[in-house]
Amino acid sequence: MTLYLNLAELLGARIEQGLYRPGQRLPSVRALSVEHGVSLSTVQQAYRMLEDSGMVSPRPKSGYFVSEGRHLPALPAVSRPAQRPVDISQWEQVLELVRSTPRQDVMQLGRGMPDINSPTLKPLLRSLAQLSRRQDMPGLYYDNIHGNLALREQIARLTLDSGCRLSPADLVVTTGCHEALSCSIRAVCEPGDIVAVDSPSFHGAMQTLKGLGMKALEIPTDPVTGISLEALELALEQWPIKLIQITPSCNNPLGYIMPEARKKALLSLAQRYDVAILEDDVYGDLAYTYPRPRTLKSFDDDGRVLLCSSFSKTLAPGLRIGWVAPGRYLERVLHMKYISTGSTASQPQLAIADFIKAGHYQPHVRRMRSQYQRSRDLMSDWVTRYFPPGTRVSRPQGGFMLWVELPEHFDTLRLNRALLEQGVQIAVGSIFSASGKFRHCLRMNFAALPTPSIEAAVRKVGETALRLLDQDDACA
Amino acid sequence: MTLYLNLAELLGARIEQGLYRPGQRLPSVRALSVEHGVSLSTVQQAYRMLEDSGMVSPRPKSGYFVSEGRHLPALPAVSRPAQRPVDISQWEQVLELVRSTPRQDVMQLGRGMPDINSPTLKPLLRSLAQLSRRQDMPGLYYDNIHGNLALREQIARLTLDSGCRLSPADLVVTTGCHEALSCSIRAVCEPGDIVAVDSPSFHGAMQTLKGLGMKALEIPTDPVTGISLEALELALEQWPIKLIQITPSCNNPLGYIMPEARKKALLSLAQRYDVAILEDDVYGDLAYTYPRPRTLKSFDDDGRVLLCSSFSKTLAPGLRIGWVAPGRYLERVLHMKYISTGSTASQPQLAIADFIKAGHYQPHVRRMRSQYQRSRDLMSDWVTRYFPPGTRVSRPQGGFMLWVELPEHFDTLRLNRALLEQGVQIAVGSIFSASGKFRHCLRMNFAALPTPSIEAAVRKVGETALRLLDQDDACA
Repeated sequence: MTLYLNLAELLGARIEQGLYRPGQRLPSVRALSVEHGVSLSTVQQAYRMLEDSGMVSPRPKSGYFVSEGRHLPALPAVSRPAQRPVDISQWEQVLELVRSTPRQDVMQLGRGMPDINSPTLKPLLRSLAQLSRRQDMPGLYYDNIHGNLALREQIARLTLDSGCRLSPADLVVTTGCHEALSCSIRAVCEPGDIVAVDSPSFHGAMQTLKGLGMKALEIPTDPVTGISLEALELALEQWPIKLIQITPSCNNPLGYIMPEARKKALLSLAQRYDVAILEDDVYGDLAYTYPRPRTLKSFDDDGRVLLCSSFSKTLAPGLRIGWVAPGRYLERVLHMKYISTGSTASQPQLAIADFIKAGHYQPHVRRMRSQYQRSRDLMSDWVTRYFPPGTRVSRPQGGFMLWVELPEHFDTLRLNRALLEQGVQIAVGSIFSASGKFRHCLRMNFAALPTPSIEAAVRKVGETALRLLDQDDACA
Repeated sequence: MTLYLNLAELLGARIEQGLYRPGQRLPSVRALSVEHGVSLSTVQQAYRMLEDSGMVSPRPKSGYFVSEGRHLPALPAVSRPAQRPVDISQWEQVLELVRSTPRQDVMQLGRGMPDINSPTLKPLLRSLAQLSRRQDMPGLYYDNIHGNLALREQIARLTLDSGCRLSPADLVVTTGCHEALSCSIRAVCEPGDIVAVDSPSFHGAMQTLKGLGMKALEIPTDPVTGISLEALELALEQWPIKLIQITPSCNNPLGYIMPEARKKALLSLAQRYDVAILEDDVYGDLAYTYPRPRTLKSFDDDGRVLLCSSFSKTLAPGLRIGWVAPGRYLERVLHMKYISTGSTASQPQLAIADFIKAGHYQPHVRRMRSQYQRSRDLMSDWVTRYFPPGTRVSRPQGGFMLWVELPEHFDTLRLNRALLEQGVQIAVGSIFSASGKFRHCLRMNFAALPTPSIEAAVRKVGETALRLLDQDDACA
């Protein structure tokens, strides 16, 4: 990453964390140039970038100021999970979430669905339709086990943006990121093995660990900088950890982007203790800053990172096309892929390859990024307005998920049940913990273009939470 | 199954097994009526059915005769695998087969590809194209974890033909039969468990056992009647078997249909020893006789059979749509499905549901059945003509796979290497055994409409085998 991007990231993080408040004057160009040992023009570039993203405003002859923004709610606390490997629970809650069929009468704020109504997706649908009309019917054949070569070429090209140098031969196409994760975990671990995970952590990956008989060791995680390297190192000393499973860029559910220096430090740690890393990058291309953050994989020089991603969040989940760059575990991942689903469906692979090759991917993702960033601000405002005082909210740097932390003894399972009667569904916090922590938290999706009915749904969530809190107070 | 079908199946099997030779007079209607305790009209119905299938011909006033057929080659021997659980090998050979991309210059006789060029498939492609043009873009959404309800309704309806009474709630849609198999195996077994398998057995299922850390116990299998119940019972007495993995209808690779009485006996055995059965029925709808054979599942009254199938052999493998009726293991299979790929792609599910609902499935399958039966006869003839004397050949009762057994010390791995240089690929026999047996066997696909170039390819296989045998003799 270039110097100005590094600096912009740092300043942005400080503003997001509240070190500089709205309206406050930021350090001068000269001061920053001295402090960071970079040129004046580098600082100016960084400020211009922050200006473009709306975080800072220049005032003629006075320098740069933090944009007079909305009142930002406090961030969630750093997680403090139990420091021992546990068997994963919470399958019933996850099942409740994933067995639901899209219904007209329920506003589903719980699932990981992107907005698929953007006109920038139309060429993909056209391509799918055209493939069905082709005389040679390419969509009906078995593909080879690696996946379609044209698609792997395009994926290799896309990953340049995250600093990777991958060839098509380094990639295996999978049925969604889910399959990339489960094949990767099985490629590295045996049942009974211990896997370190960020906390909160994506429920799908944790259920995979559960289903394959592994134990999860939840590591304290900061809502701005990600997994605690100090806690992770202690854990690596204490336990025979086989794998670190982590979502460092546009984390699900917290939305943070782990700073680049910490990514490098994480990788060194993994090298020192000779542990593999499963890097889930499924939201990485949806970072609000451009260029997107680098992956751990891009720093990986001995093939220990298995980089997993998909087009489920950037394009559409119904296509079920993901991929993995498994490094030194390639052969084993191929075996696991074969026994999991055989080859991957051809038609969506070909359509996505066409879509990227024709140059439709970047404009689409660019559009979605800024839509999601605007929706994040709006939904944060709604939460500030409608939720109980003291509610803490994540400040996502990418993707379309908001993490909300209610008072400590609040039960979001109960909230969800009360909400379903009112036609609203959220994702309860406990599914993001191996041991059922985060019962007082919830995740909401802000992908869809904001409408009054979405605002009404968020309001219902907040007001129902308030009502339940009042009931508790009355009983206490 | 009705009485006349039972009788037709029995007579057909006897003819296939050579108990009645071509041109020989069959028992009179009256004699069979007495022997089997059925009415004269039942016997007449059975004979009419065999007449329709071309196996018998009536001669006025003299009764029924076995059709003067081609000279039928001898059947493969009953397998005699090692009677102990083994770790599964052969992944390298399987990988060689499945990593190959369809190539213009290679005639792939090895893979499990159906003929997808039938005009009866056109409505499916139309439906896929229409779905891509719909404004509500149903193909882009996450489906629920059970699979699309409309498709499950149609599958439930189709399984009536195999004697099942299933409701949509009994079914889970999967990404091909592969995923149905792996989810089922993981739902029942833990790593280290012993699974009894037919022998030869489908390599995909065996590689799944391998990948999940189970051991396979190969059971002697008859090329006409299927797995030896006597040997299986001995094994059940001797070993703590958790699961019986079997393809009883239109077996892959042998093509037999296990007689109904033996299916029932197998199920009783499983009940007696309290073992689950994984029934792979992926070729079942392609049985050459109509109605198709009953599944083990149709006799299962305590939910111990996990019936797995897909549309990969009947419609097209590139769609990657399979399903499982997991009986008492439903909840556990759902979990395994969730961690394997999440929900299944929506668009192909919707297209297949449309296709079946509009009445296109049965005519398509009827057409493919008779095409495959004719191609079976043709390919058997080619093998008889071009292969070394003494070659034994299976006599498939459904599907599109021929199993060929060469002299005992022949090495088909060597044959395959020599053939690839000539642009032909076969499936080597050793991948169908957990312990690498059947090195002298091979499997060939006869799905495609016969052409001179396919005949030339089969001829190349035979002549190359002859040449290698001659070399061996010269060296001996």
